[in-house]
Amino acid sequence: MYKITTLENGLENVEGFYCGATHVGMRPDTTQGDVAFIRSEVPCDISAVFTSNTFQAAPIKHFQRYPQGFQTDFVLINAKNANAMTGVQGLEDIETIMSTLSTKQKVLNPVMSSTGVIGYRLPIDKITSAFEKLDFKSKNSHEASRAIMTTDSFKKELALRVELDDGSIFNIAAICKGAGMINPAMATMLCFVITDADIPKADMDILLRDSTEQSFNRISVDGDTSTNDTVMLLANKKSATYHKKAFSQALEKIMFELAMMILKDGEGANKLVSFEVKGAKSIDEAKTASMALSNSLLVKTALFGEDPNWGRIASTIGASGITCDDRKLSIYYDDLLIYSDEFRELDKIREDKAYTIMKQHTFKVTCDIGLGDASYISYGCDLSYEYVKINAEYRT
Amino acid sequence: MYKITTLENGLENVEGFYCGATHVGMRPDTTQGDVAFIRSEVPCDISAVFTSNTFQAAPIKHFQRYPQGFQTDFVLINAKNANAMTGVQGLEDIETIMSTLSTKQKVLNPVMSSTGVIGYRLPIDKITSAFEKLDFKSKNSHEASRAIMTTDSFKKELALRVELDDGSIFNIAAICKGAGMINPAMATMLCFVITDADIPKADMDILLRDSTEQSFNRISVDGDTSTNDTVMLLANKKSATYHKKAFSQALEKIMFELAMMILKDGEGANKLVSFEVKGAKSIDEAKTASMALSNSLLVKTALFGEDPNWGRIASTIGASGITCDDRKLSIYYDDLLIYSDEFRELDKIREDKAYTIMKQHTFKVTCDIGLGDASYISYGCDLSYEYVKINAEYRT
Repeated sequence: MYKITTLENGLENVEGFYCGATHVGMRPDTTQGDVAFIRSEVPCDISAVFTSNTFQAAPIKHFQRYPQGFQTDFVLINAKNANAMTGVQGLEDIETIMSTLSTKQKVLNPVMSSTGVIGYRLPIDKITSAFEKLDFKSKNSHEASRAIMTTDSFKKELALRVELDDGSIFNIAAICKGAGMINPAMATMLCFVITDADIPKADMDILLRDSTEQSFNRISVDGDTSTNDTVMLLANKKSATYHKKAFSQALEKIMFELAMMILKDGEGANKLVSFEVKGAKSIDEAKTASMALSNSLLVKTALFGEDPNWGRIASTIGASGITCDDRKLSIYYDDLLIYSDEFRELDKIREDKAYTIMKQHTFKVTCDIGLGDASYISYGCDLSYEYVKINAEYRT
Repeated sequence: MYKITTLENGLENVEGFYCGATHVGMRPDTTQGDVAFIRSEVPCDISAVFTSNTFQAAPIKHFQRYPQGFQTDFVLINAKNANAMTGVQGLEDIETIMSTLSTKQKVLNPVMSSTGVIGYRLPIDKITSAFEKLDFKSKNSHEASRAIMTTDSFKKELALRVELDDGSIFNIAAICKGAGMINPAMATMLCFVITDADIPKADMDILLRDSTEQSFNRISVDGDTSTNDTVMLLANKKSATYHKKAFSQALEKIMFELAMMILKDGEGANKLVSFEVKGAKSIDEAKTASMALSNSLLVKTALFGEDPNWGRIASTIGASGITCDDRKLSIYYDDLLIYSDEFRELDKIREDKAYTIMKQHTFKVTCDIGLGDASYISYGCDLSYEYVKINAEYRT
């Protein structure tokens, strides 16, 4: 059928794309960029999924002013300033920046993406100074992925090659940032996926939405939703080949792995835990309970404290409002049954086994509601002192 | 009309009630009780509000087995064990305890209330050993309020006297425990209000529900809801007098002040902040946004960090899903306008003023949505390292 291979490095693997970054003085560390670009030598179709926050940031509003189905060849990204809650001025500032860009580099419908603090105007002079320094012919994915980081402790990039039976290939790669729910400390979750596959625009829209639901929408560090969250897919069709199922699988793999990187980099987090709720009456109920678990402060602190008591898990399910019955419920840590109607009180042997499971960096909590056949998995992390420190000290 | 006076001490101010506590070995500290009682010399009407958690604990289920409108003269309360998720066994254990009690003390329809860890059977022998030690004629509100504490750092009790124009008086008093949302670390929120007022049962039900909505339902430490949350009102009518408006005001005052005590004692909390959302399209929307603010991890850590940036406030309102528009929104810290459409970027002078406000132990955040006339106030606290410590180490 087809073969999917993980490649070294990131965006540079995709035909006809350029990328890079430079430092313009928005962050103190001069060895790390703060303005990045992704550019295609030919116009791209573009699909995007944006935050559900009502107060969408200026770059999102700017994107949405282009007509449906517009093509672009340029994405400009900055860190340290979200250009959010900046009103009409925020949009005008983007226009000014893009108009300066067009005097240095021919661009078609350029789009922007920002992350950082809310409520301050972009420093236009600093950002436009990047256009003097950037090499628009560079292919430096490492620099670009480092430049978009905020509270992230490591850069996030991934590239896959899809080889079809007839020997034709296409590539798909992405960079991403974020170290919180899809919004830690207003640090925002951003992801830029590029491909040279000859993918129809309609498939781009559907597959990006589906893959977002399977990846970034299932992770939680702190349950907040930023003004700037953005996932973009750009396709320049430089490879003449495409295979929907293969592309879909590769896109989902790339986005899921990036989402897990965000969770591993969750502010102050040490553990990555999956919460599967099954046997629920409906998928909505399974999702409600699963997300309640990955968002609960009490569950998160119990994970940090490696407390094997299942009481906080059960109580969170009960508090989520879904249909449930304590006589039908079962709870497992990995494969260890830790609660069921016949088996309520935790004995020493199971407590010790549970404790061993919780010592791991990654494990699974499964809650079988026992009332239906719907299921949902979400992914969470623990809440440590470090989270409080990072979020209390952000901006200072 | 009438005069409401705050009295010294607590439950002992109410005619015909007795209370006390003893230590039976459920907690290590032998100087603090772990089993408490409240008793009336005559049968009382009783109203109660219980947790919305589907997995209501055994004592709540036990209460609900009594017929509508039942009378009681005895409440037994224990700390350290919630008797939650204990199934049929949990109910049988209460029956066993009450049956032993009735051999020592004549009781009518005794009710129980528990707080502590989930998923373990009550230690029946320890609890029934209390009946050998308790003096059912004592009036020791301090001991009772200390005995029901879990992660609380101070006991919570309050008593009011209402004097009517004709010189008649009635008393109302309460003890309460809780140091989290109405559920910190499964520590649960419990409140027992007693009165000698000659209040009709129908008023008891309505006024208790209304006062709960105005007090305990408006505070948040961690956004969780326990299996055991309980507010009870017992009226023995020993005073022949009653005045609905006066009683309502006194009850609301007592419950509101106790709720503020819970918040001040919020696990690891240093600040008590009120979040008023006004100008919303409906009360539901005002409540949604207000509760989102008092529950947000990002807002809570910003309070702890004394970060005057309004970005997290605005983003949380946007993420709450209510109808809002950044051009209509205004945000105030106490009386300081910190955000409006004309006045977005925070200048140094206002930032310094905001910082001074945030240094206080108590202040107010007001968000005027600018689209309607509905409003709602909730009360929250900051999230500190100490919260994580308390909740990671609970049970150990």
